[in-house]
Parts: sequence; structure tokens; C-alpha cells
Amino acid sequence: MSSTGKTGQDGDQARVKRRESRFALRLLAQWRRLALPAGGERVIVAVSGGADSVALLLMMDELRRSGQLALEISVAHLDHELRGQGGLEDALWVKRLADSLGFDFTLGRGGVRERARRTTDNLEQAARRARYEFLAGVAKESEARLVLTGHTLDDQAETVLLRLLRGSGSEGLSGMEAVRPLHEASDVTLARPLLAWARRVDTESYCRERDMEFRRDSMNEDDGFARVRVRRQLLPLLKTFNPRAVEAIARAADLLREDAAVLKNSAEELLKRASSEGKTAGINSGPSITESLSVDVLKDAPAPVRRRALRLWIAGGRGDLRRLELVHLSGVEKLLAGERGGRRAELPGGSFVEVRRGRLWFHVK
Amino acid sequence: MSSTGKTGQDGDQARVKRRESRFALRLLAQWRRLALPAGGERVIVAVSGGADSVALLLMMDELRRSGQLALEISVAHLDHELRGQGGLEDALWVKRLADSLGFDFTLGRGGVRERARRTTDNLEQAARRARYEFLAGVAKESEARLVLTGHTLDDQAETVLLRLLRGSGSEGLSGMEAVRPLHEASDVTLARPLLAWARRVDTESYCRERDMEFRRDSMNEDDGFARVRVRRQLLPLLKTFNPRAVEAIARAADLLREDAAVLKNSAEELLKRASSEGKTAGINSGPSITESLSVDVLKDAPAPVRRRALRLWIAGGRGDLRRLELVHLSGVEKLLAGERGGRRAELPGGSFVEVRRGRLWFHVK
Repeated sequence: MSSTGKTGQDGDQARVKRRESRFALRLLAQWRRLALPAGGERVIVAVSGGADSVALLLMMDELRRSGQLALEISVAHLDHELRGQGGLEDALWVKRLADSLGFDFTLGRGGVRERARRTTDNLEQAARRARYEFLAGVAKESEARLVLTGHTLDDQAETVLLRLLRGSGSEGLSGMEAVRPLHEASDVTLARPLLAWARRVDTESYCRERDMEFRRDSMNEDDGFARVRVRRQLLPLLKTFNPRAVEAIARAADLLREDAAVLKNSAEELLKRASSEGKTAGINSGPSITESLSVDVLKDAPAPVRRRALRLWIAGGRGDLRRLELVHLSGVEKLLAGERGGRRAELPGGSFVEVRRGRLWFHVK
Repeated sequence: MSSTGKTGQDGDQARVKRRESRFALRLLAQWRRLALPAGGERVIVAVSGGADSVALLLMMDELRRSGQLALEISVAHLDHELRGQGGLEDALWVKRLADSLGFDFTLGRGGVRERARRTTDNLEQAARRARYEFLAGVAKESEARLVLTGHTLDDQAETVLLRLLRGSGSEGLSGMEAVRPLHEASDVTLARPLLAWARRVDTESYCRERDMEFRRDSMNEDDGFARVRVRRQLLPLLKTFNPRAVEAIARAADLLREDAAVLKNSAEELLKRASSEGKTAGINSGPSITESLSVDVLKDAPAPVRRRALRLWIAGGRGDLRRLELVHLSGVEKLLAGERGGRRAELPGGSFVEVRRGRLWFHVK
């Protein structure tokens, strides 16, 4: 399946070069910048049927046909089962697109409403979780180590704005990463090769250039979803202040992401020092994130680094950071200051942190 | 003038305590948190006549009368001379308010339009510059070391949003500081004791509680000013997403301000190392910010710290950072990487940075 395009064009480089659109060449440049693999493996493209993911799939097809990327492409589509017949029609449409390009196709069913009912997630959160679980399953089944989504610069700006509205710090305001593990400790990479440069209008005009239709998801027009209102009401207003507001917000996110990486590094170093400092040699085997921490070392550290270190430590102890708020971290920090109100700080879910003999100890429920 | 209130109430502490409003007590709590002086000196309160600054002045008066703060208060008002008769009426209104409270009053005249014409500043920038210059002058004349403005949490959120729309990093997105030198190297402190907690609606309802009118500046209703549109269009929309959007944005700013302080510290350390490393002992007298910097030391540093160090270095060399953009910093960073395109990087205004013998050298025009 994957070699058809390439073989047919090996003999005519000039014709091949002409075939690549401006957009596909920008994707290729970004592909290289992100150091993504140029060949020899399978890649899963998540395709909702919207302009962004359809454009991504077609550009990948261009680059495969021209021989720039020698990858096997599979298409994955999740029916969130939120829209009955409409969802099924989208799924069929994406399947036909995949067929026409000669790509494998996998359909997933989300049961998102059911999933939201079972958990405390809202529909948007449940849908996102369902998507990433589905993609992880498809990747595993087809032994792919790379999954692509069609997130654009517009998605990035929307994410940053939603997080600003929640009062997030630099990690949240950094928005999405262009490359990250699909989930924690996963050896599958999630890449968003449009994120750093493509505007949504670009993907739409690319689809039109290629004479390719795309689907309009009615979920994307439901103002009950905050993200939809950011897209349809907030961003248009922001553009009246600065026509390049989307780019400006994404640039801010880039700067904050770099800051956050430096501070995370400092936090990891602090954690190491706080863990090893004052320990009796020979008693503890090796440094582990749930080891006790020296109060003195933590106390002397700057607050933003200390808070990040404590988050890492708690994540290590509990397995995750679910429902951990600034107020819980402040509780732990108060232990350091030796302020009144008990020598332990409770964490959501029943685990707690205790101060004893000049060290912080993590207690799992 | 200043002792009237205090003397009259020394004998009746219970009655005095009742006099302090909830708002004045919050101001007092913040005053202490910011470690501002409790007495024995003169403080200048900048009063435009709007609800925020009028509320600040009245709360300060409460705290002075109740004996919580033993400060001499002077009122300063700048007529921006943008609105002819309206500006004069505001000035007279503020003068009468100051008189009625028994405070000194100083009127300044801005000539803001003329000032904007002379410079490349827009009206908003020219007005801000005129205000701070005026306040510095008043402080000097009356030998005051503390100037107060009535900026609120709403002003903070507006500032953050305007900077996000420009694509600022964490320094810009940190918004305003509650306490800072009035201008660089000034020994006059500018404090904004309402910034961290007071909403604009609070100051308005406080004025109503005190049965005190306030002025509505027509500049604050002119949609030609970006800040006015942020206040009148953007913030109301953001509140439909989160009723506490202003607080959320201000919280994000607080977190980013703490991050920025840590990174600035790291940048200063880096600068020190880059300046001393590889220097022949005895040749250079003491470390100065315009000394040459070791390319190797800078090259090994994380980009966000390096960029901040270079900004500090350039600010030291040029005297300021006017018109310095990310693109100029990138130019200097390219010198470090030894990339092609010349061994110097031009800065706006004619100064430039040169790489020679493994070091960066700053050349003033």
C-alpha cells in the first residue's frame, strides 16, 4: 500500500517537486524541525473530517507520494457518539477518504456521554480522554510509534485563553506541545506538526486548493462548549485589537513554555538535593521521588521552584496530580514555615504530607 | 493639618475602631503586607477623580483619622489637557475634595497631545509618561518618598490582556507590581495598595457608602483607546466564561511574576559568570554590566535565561531597552552559535554587539 506513490514517481523528480504544495513544504520543514522520522515506520493520523485534520492527511499524502517521507499511513477516526446519525456520516466520509488514498482506516466508538456520566468529567474532557485512549489503542494494535493530530495555531490560542480564564500559571499558559509522549511513560509519540505555524484558514484554503471537501462538526458550532465560544466570540473580538492576535498569543505560549522547562529543571535539581541532604549514608538505597525531603533545603528555595518540586514529589507519591490545587501546595508549604495548624497537610484522595525530624514525609492513603 | 484627626480621637478608641470601614481595614492589611511605612512621613496620593483613586484617598483618610497610619497626605492631580474644559472641572473637583479633607493639593498640566506629537508615543503612552514624571516632580518638591496610585485588580487584568495581545512573555504578562521604584534608580517608591485585592465595583460601592461622588473621565469612555475597549468589551465577554475572570487573570499574573523573578535572578548570575569567565586577572577592575561576555558560558545556558541576561547586558550598555525586540536578541544569539551572516548584530539606535576572541563586546554608537 505505502510504496505505490513513491515507486510511480521515482523516475521523474522534476514533476514530483512541482506536485508539492506550499503548505506541504511548510509541513515538511516543520517535520524536520521536530526531528520526526522520515521513513520506515507506520504513522497514525487522527482525522475528524474537519479542515485541519483533512488538510494534514492530504499534505502527508503529498509528502509520501513525492518521496519526501517514506511512511506507512493509517487513518483513525473516533465517533464520539454524541450526535447519532451525524457522527456516523462523518465516520463513513472519513473512511471513504482513507480508502481513496489507499490508507488503512480504523473506526472507534467513544460513548462519550456514558463516559462523562461515569466520571466527574464534563463532555469536553470525556471526549478528549476518549480520543487519546482510542489513539493509544490504534497505535498499539498497528505497532505504530507516532500519532499525528491536526491541531493548528488557532487551537493553541484557544487553549491558552481557556487556561488564562482559569488562572493557570506558565505550564498551563504554555498551551499544547508540538511533540510529547501520547500519555505518561508511553513510547508512542503524539506530534502536532501544524501547531506552530498553520492557521485554521490555511487548512481550509488548502482543502479548497486541493478541491477537497471537509466536514463541519456540529459540535464545533455548539456554543455550549467553552472552546467553541472562544473560537466564535472571543477570538474575533481579540482580532479587532490585533489582527495577528492568534500569532501573538501563540508566541506568548512559546516563551512561557521555555520558561516552564527551565523552572522544571531547577525543580528537579532541588528535589534531588532535598532528598539526599541530611540523609544517613547507607540507610536509603537510591534516590526515589517518594523519599523524604529536607525542610531546610526546601525552605531556602525560591517559591516557584519549590512549588514545582513539591508537585513533582506529590505526583511521584500519588501517581498523579488529580484534584491537586494551589491550596494543597500552600498547605504543604506552611509545614515548612513551621506555622501553626498541625504538622500534616492533607491532600485530596486521603494521602497526606507530614513533617517530622526536619523532613517532609509522604503518606499514601 | 495632619494631626487633627488623630488628636481628636485618641481618647475614644472604641468609637475610632467603629469608624474604619471594611474596605479601609483591607487596605490596612495590604499596607502591612507590602511593608509600607506606618507613619512619620509624607505620602503623595495620585487622584484622577475616578472612583478608584477617590476611594483610595478616602480610605487613607480613614486610616489616618483612626490613628492606624500617622502619615502626612498630599493629593496630586494631573490635567492631561486632552479634554479642555472637562479636564479643568475634574481638577477643581479634586482640589475641593483635597481641601475638604485638609490635604495639600498640587495640580499638574500634561500637554499630552503636544508630548505625543514630539515623540513616537501614542496618546496613552504619552499620558502615562506625563503622569509619572509629574508624580516624580511632586514627590521631589515635597520630599516624599512614597507615591500611591489607585490601580485595582481590574486594571491588572486589563494590563495582562493588552500584553497578551502583543505576545509578551512572563515579564509582560506579570502585569503591574504592587510596589516598585517610581522610575529606575529612584528612591521614591510607587505603591498600588489596591492592586492585589480591590475590584473596581468595590471602589465604586465604597464611594457610595461614604456618600461621595466621583468623576467619570470621558477618556475612560472613548473606545479609541485599547484599554477602554478591553474594559468595556473584552472583560464583560470573559466574565461570561468565568464570572471571576478578573481574579483568575490576576492570579496568573502573580504566578508569572514569581517565575520571572526567579529567572531574572538566574540571568544575573549567568551575566556575572559570563563576564568573569576567561578574563585575565588584574586587567579589568570590577564587574560591570557592559564588560565583555564569554561566548562559551552564554552558549551553555538555557535560552530563556540567556535572553534575559542579554537584555540586562544591553540595557546596561545602552541605558535602556527602547525598541529592543526579540529579533534583535535573536541576532545576538546567532553570534553565539557562530552562524553565518556577519560577526556583529545591530541594535536599534546604532549600537551593536560584536563577537571577537570568544567574547561578546558591546559597542555604543
